[in-house]
Amino acid sequence: MERPVNFSAGPAAVPEPVLHRIREELGDWDGTGASVVEQSHRGAPFLDLAARLEERLRRLLGIPRDYRVLLLQGGAQMQFAAVPLNLAGEGGSASYVDTGSWSSRAIDEARRFCRVRVAASSEEDKYRSIPSPEKWKVAPGSAYVHFVANETIGGVEFHEVPAPDAGGAPLVADFSSNILSRPLEVGRFGVVYAGAQKNMGVSGLTVVIVDEALLDRAHPLTPTVVRYADQARADSMANTPCTFAWYVAALVLEWIEAEGGLAIMAARNDRKAARLYKAVDATDFYQNPIAPACRSRMNVPFLLAEKGLDEAFLDEAREAGLIGLKGHRSVGGMRASLYNAIPESGVERLAAFLSDFERRRG
Amino acid sequence: MERPVNFSAGPAAVPEPVLHRIREELGDWDGTGASVVEQSHRGAPFLDLAARLEERLRRLLGIPRDYRVLLLQGGAQMQFAAVPLNLAGEGGSASYVDTGSWSSRAIDEARRFCRVRVAASSEEDKYRSIPSPEKWKVAPGSAYVHFVANETIGGVEFHEVPAPDAGGAPLVADFSSNILSRPLEVGRFGVVYAGAQKNMGVSGLTVVIVDEALLDRAHPLTPTVVRYADQARADSMANTPCTFAWYVAALVLEWIEAEGGLAIMAARNDRKAARLYKAVDATDFYQNPIAPACRSRMNVPFLLAEKGLDEAFLDEAREAGLIGLKGHRSVGGMRASLYNAIPESGVERLAAFLSDFERRRG
Repeated sequence: MERPVNFSAGPAAVPEPVLHRIREELGDWDGTGASVVEQSHRGAPFLDLAARLEERLRRLLGIPRDYRVLLLQGGAQMQFAAVPLNLAGEGGSASYVDTGSWSSRAIDEARRFCRVRVAASSEEDKYRSIPSPEKWKVAPGSAYVHFVANETIGGVEFHEVPAPDAGGAPLVADFSSNILSRPLEVGRFGVVYAGAQKNMGVSGLTVVIVDEALLDRAHPLTPTVVRYADQARADSMANTPCTFAWYVAALVLEWIEAEGGLAIMAARNDRKAARLYKAVDATDFYQNPIAPACRSRMNVPFLLAEKGLDEAFLDEAREAGLIGLKGHRSVGGMRASLYNAIPESGVERLAAFLSDFERRRG
Repeated sequence: MERPVNFSAGPAAVPEPVLHRIREELGDWDGTGASVVEQSHRGAPFLDLAARLEERLRRLLGIPRDYRVLLLQGGAQMQFAAVPLNLAGEGGSASYVDTGSWSSRAIDEARRFCRVRVAASSEEDKYRSIPSPEKWKVAPGSAYVHFVANETIGGVEFHEVPAPDAGGAPLVADFSSNILSRPLEVGRFGVVYAGAQKNMGVSGLTVVIVDEALLDRAHPLTPTVVRYADQARADSMANTPCTFAWYVAALVLEWIEAEGGLAIMAARNDRKAARLYKAVDATDFYQNPIAPACRSRMNVPFLLAEKGLDEAFLDEAREAGLIGLKGHRSVGGMRASLYNAIPESGVERLAAFLSDFERRRG
């Protein structure tokens, strides 16, 4: 039987060839006689894996040499604390842009650790748009300017690197739900961070790419395992890494390279998103309220005109082999996440199901 | 071919039936049509798993009802910071017992966050023994008294819960390398914590069992994802959990129950350790310097009388199907970790190899 298409927002679908590989190697990895999860992280085979993982990530994203790649734990939410702790130091301040649920959480968390200026917000527009970067009011002396590159819940995405008047403050961005979905100009950021459980494998790994010039600014109360300078010195092994998540990420990066790289991913993702938005926009039966210029290619939330049909929609979608479509509990409705692992044929099936469901139930 | 016996100190061997189960279920978990690593942590199937995991842990360890079970990330080293942040508050103090490498690291990290009194240390004895709890000098007003229940590198273990004169300060202990190796009186502790990658599955999960009375004492600069009160309220989902590590832990606990529970594990572990120490003590060719009363049942470090034979020992052991024996880089020599997943037959093979190697090379 064909596997269902899994539109979960995260933890999310893993490319099928990667799942096959995990399964094949589970008993004996790399000729060691043991599973990859049974390896010492200090052993030569795992250190080789770690080196390959970083090398592939550097190649795919074109990471400049003066940036460090840190492989940490705790997800983007750990970074919501780690960013101000590492960059704002004691008594510092930072500017944040508020474009939805994740931005707001980042702001709330940062307020524990530093003075926060909200430089711009689309809250008044119910987060259906992105504030124009020319109008961001970055506080003078900000240690950095933070934004969330893709709002997984609201479904808004930055399609360009913003160029606000930041007075020299570096950009810091949460790319959890769109990293590796297209090329990224890392050099325009001070810090790029992302949880792995959407486009880079499984939960338990957070990638932090940080300009070396920003190391060693940490608040004294920064725990070692989230202190960028300490983890850079320790090659991300100041604590025992989540070795399985590193392993899966290495396989996912290998898969992306084999598929042709980020330009190919970007073209596919553009086509997938265009196909699904077209289906949603084709009728009043489905609604997505986001301004077209900043709609997310990764997460497409949509509501049914009749809320009473939500359960039937999910049940029938499941029968049609389409799963993981339930919207975030804070907004309800549906959400289809179209990460790299979702094939174009899967989006085609979803679009067809949308038409079919409306015809029968609309 | 028989799988090698993997004596790695951690990440460590996983019980074979658990590995088989992971492999079987990898493509389609729990009838969902997707892998367990592709599940939303908020979906009903994963929430069921989380409930089963906590329930099993509570049953196996007899955790009192007024204790919370938190499932976090970052390993014991994250807890080295989280413990003082959560328990000592602002301007607080704590007492620590120093019995080796991990205790020392815990102390160094705690010094960032609170005043630390070293209540006792076996450093002068080169960490070959454990300071008698009656002689611990707990600082008045200590928020807690911290010790490491088993030193994974040095190979010393507490075989009783210490009962120092602590002036009412709760005991806090790192059980990373011996949790679930025998019954544990959780009620005698304020906090018990442990990384999962030794006796509870794979890296990426840290279990923190905390007396409810100790919640809400946190320093204001405690990040949300390591703040016990916040994670207790969020059922450990203030951030996305490392879902694979939770899944494996649930399977490992199921396996322990199927094998007969912690009393059975304890009896096996006692026999395994006795067998290996007997082999090491039988000859001057191998040396373990730890005082017999506090030798670890979990980690048995030993040196060869001739250091020049280390490589040959490791090579020949590997050929004999015995892997993961290289000692920690800070001490050299050998180390055999005898966690629950190591069968008695595996220790028998190692003991036989020790005799055989000495006969040929000694």
